[in-house]
Amino acid sequence: LCTEHLLKGKARAIIANSGNANACTGNAGLENARETARVAAEALEITPEEVLVASTGVIGAQLNMKLLKESIPLLVKNLSSDDIPQAAKAIMTTDSFPKISSFQGRVEGRTYHLLGIAKGAGMIMPDMATMLCFILTDVNINKPDLKKALSISVESSFNRITVDGDTSTNDTVLILANGMAGNRSLSGNDYQNFVEGLQRVLNDLAIMIVKDGEGATKIVHIRVEGAATKEDALRAARTVANSNLVKTAFYGQDPNWGRIMGALGRSDIVMQEDKVNLFIDDILIVRNGLGIGENSEKKAAEIMKNHEFKLLIQLNQGNFQDRIITSDLTHEYVSINADYRT
Amino acid sequence: LCTEHLLKGKARAIIANSGNANACTGNAGLENARETARVAAEALEITPEEVLVASTGVIGAQLNMKLLKESIPLLVKNLSSDDIPQAAKAIMTTDSFPKISSFQGRVEGRTYHLLGIAKGAGMIMPDMATMLCFILTDVNINKPDLKKALSISVESSFNRITVDGDTSTNDTVLILANGMAGNRSLSGNDYQNFVEGLQRVLNDLAIMIVKDGEGATKIVHIRVEGAATKEDALRAARTVANSNLVKTAFYGQDPNWGRIMGALGRSDIVMQEDKVNLFIDDILIVRNGLGIGENSEKKAAEIMKNHEFKLLIQLNQGNFQDRIITSDLTHEYVSINADYRT
Repeated sequence: LCTEHLLKGKARAIIANSGNANACTGNAGLENARETARVAAEALEITPEEVLVASTGVIGAQLNMKLLKESIPLLVKNLSSDDIPQAAKAIMTTDSFPKISSFQGRVEGRTYHLLGIAKGAGMIMPDMATMLCFILTDVNINKPDLKKALSISVESSFNRITVDGDTSTNDTVLILANGMAGNRSLSGNDYQNFVEGLQRVLNDLAIMIVKDGEGATKIVHIRVEGAATKEDALRAARTVANSNLVKTAFYGQDPNWGRIMGALGRSDIVMQEDKVNLFIDDILIVRNGLGIGENSEKKAAEIMKNHEFKLLIQLNQGNFQDRIITSDLTHEYVSINADYRT
Repeated sequence: LCTEHLLKGKARAIIANSGNANACTGNAGLENARETARVAAEALEITPEEVLVASTGVIGAQLNMKLLKESIPLLVKNLSSDDIPQAAKAIMTTDSFPKISSFQGRVEGRTYHLLGIAKGAGMIMPDMATMLCFILTDVNINKPDLKKALSISVESSFNRITVDGDTSTNDTVLILANGMAGNRSLSGNDYQNFVEGLQRVLNDLAIMIVKDGEGATKIVHIRVEGAATKEDALRAARTVANSNLVKTAFYGQDPNWGRIMGALGRSDIVMQEDKVNLFIDDILIVRNGLGIGENSEKKAAEIMKNHEFKLLIQLNQGNFQDRIITSDLTHEYVSINADYRT
């Protein structure tokens, strides 16, 4: 429905609900989404095509339209520019904290603003966008440039995180620009600055999503260097980041590098065991495929007690690199997901 | 080393250790494997090339050769044809029970035997074989036929199970035939019967491995029908079987079919949401992509209380099918793997 509405030109409102994903709901679900946009448009005195819809929660159940229809006029009546924190809270499902990030830029002597909110804690391995993320800006920017800026920024932020390797049915990232900053155009360096600001906001939100990964106690920045191809670099990082054995070792604060080597070995990339180096932060634990020894593993285990650390994988096969941010796999993840619906 | 030794002709002994995988151990590890074969050969009064070696356990640590050298002569001294149960027990690591299966066949009026033992409870998503599995038979069979029979049987058994999506560094399946049954040759129907017997033994062992999957409380037989290609059928089954969200729902005994649809949706196969049917055993829970309702989900939840059940996925895209046997993801899996080395 969003794709259809976006074809008509511009959007002026987003109506989102949490608790129900409105996915796998067939024609009835699509009709409910249309009805939601219609009711929101009526209350806002705009056209339904100017409304975008987003949903997150349980898959396969129909929306409670009675509740939605009753609530929307009230929501519109209470709209205020101070309510972003409340909106960030309202879209949470298993999230434990609201996710907000912002940026201020300058163009033609004027200040403009970027503000993003996001939700997401499980079913996170974005393949295009992730869960729900809404970004507002008052900068004046033409549509093709805004689209390009968003694509670039999503690719380097949301598309580089994973919590559980399960891509969501409801990945949504929306950006709205209203031009109220009053600048004439955004080009050259000003455009680059805007893209950097947008990347910063999306990256902030992406890291918050991993931090809040269901049951997560660790955030691990996995970087692969020296891959034979760009695809190999990403595939290696993603395979290690999604390995349940690696993720439980992170949880156990155990530099069990054999599991990392095992994951690399099954990832179907060009690699030679005796060329691989592994680091936890700045501690070398594997050189040329062999363990450095007990002493360096003790130091690495010490680092792994931190909430956040780096894993660097040097493949020494070529000149390509990529990265993925992941979390650990914990008892709490199992508890949350064994009991989610019941 | 096994590949090298097999080139020389025949094998007469397997020496295996558990607790240490002798993987990612470089040249020193290879030399230790050679030394192990040499010591075993000496004690058995055969050549080192007639000995196959296998290891399972922690990756990246060197073998304790002193212990091995001291133990091998004693092992050989106590060899007896009654000791298979002890051997099956000796190769266990995190396994909770020894895995043995056997089969008796008839050829030319003579009886022959097939006996297999296996170990494996975690790092299980075989891509060719799995962990350690040794099969002995007294049938007389030529080498190419034996190899073909083993390949066929491994493909339909070990290559169709997963516990945690992590393929092991040490997948090993070995079969030895000594011809002592005295039959002249194995061909035609006799060969087919032998292959069926072998498949039965390997399938038994494969299911035992999933049953003993680390922390597993459920065995789920996932079958995909109506896929557009053979590859799609396997990919769909494997993606659902490895989804942490699906596996925690199995643990929670919750027919949360939205997660199954989500996994299918990200599996990169040809599918249309509104053509998909899902069954738990014989209970239809999703028809044409939509949930059947609370009543059928209650019945499905009742079935999911069993230790073992089926999930049937009908894609209605073509005529291909495949299957995977998987386990659930539990608190106990996380406990075992957060603490494995420490």
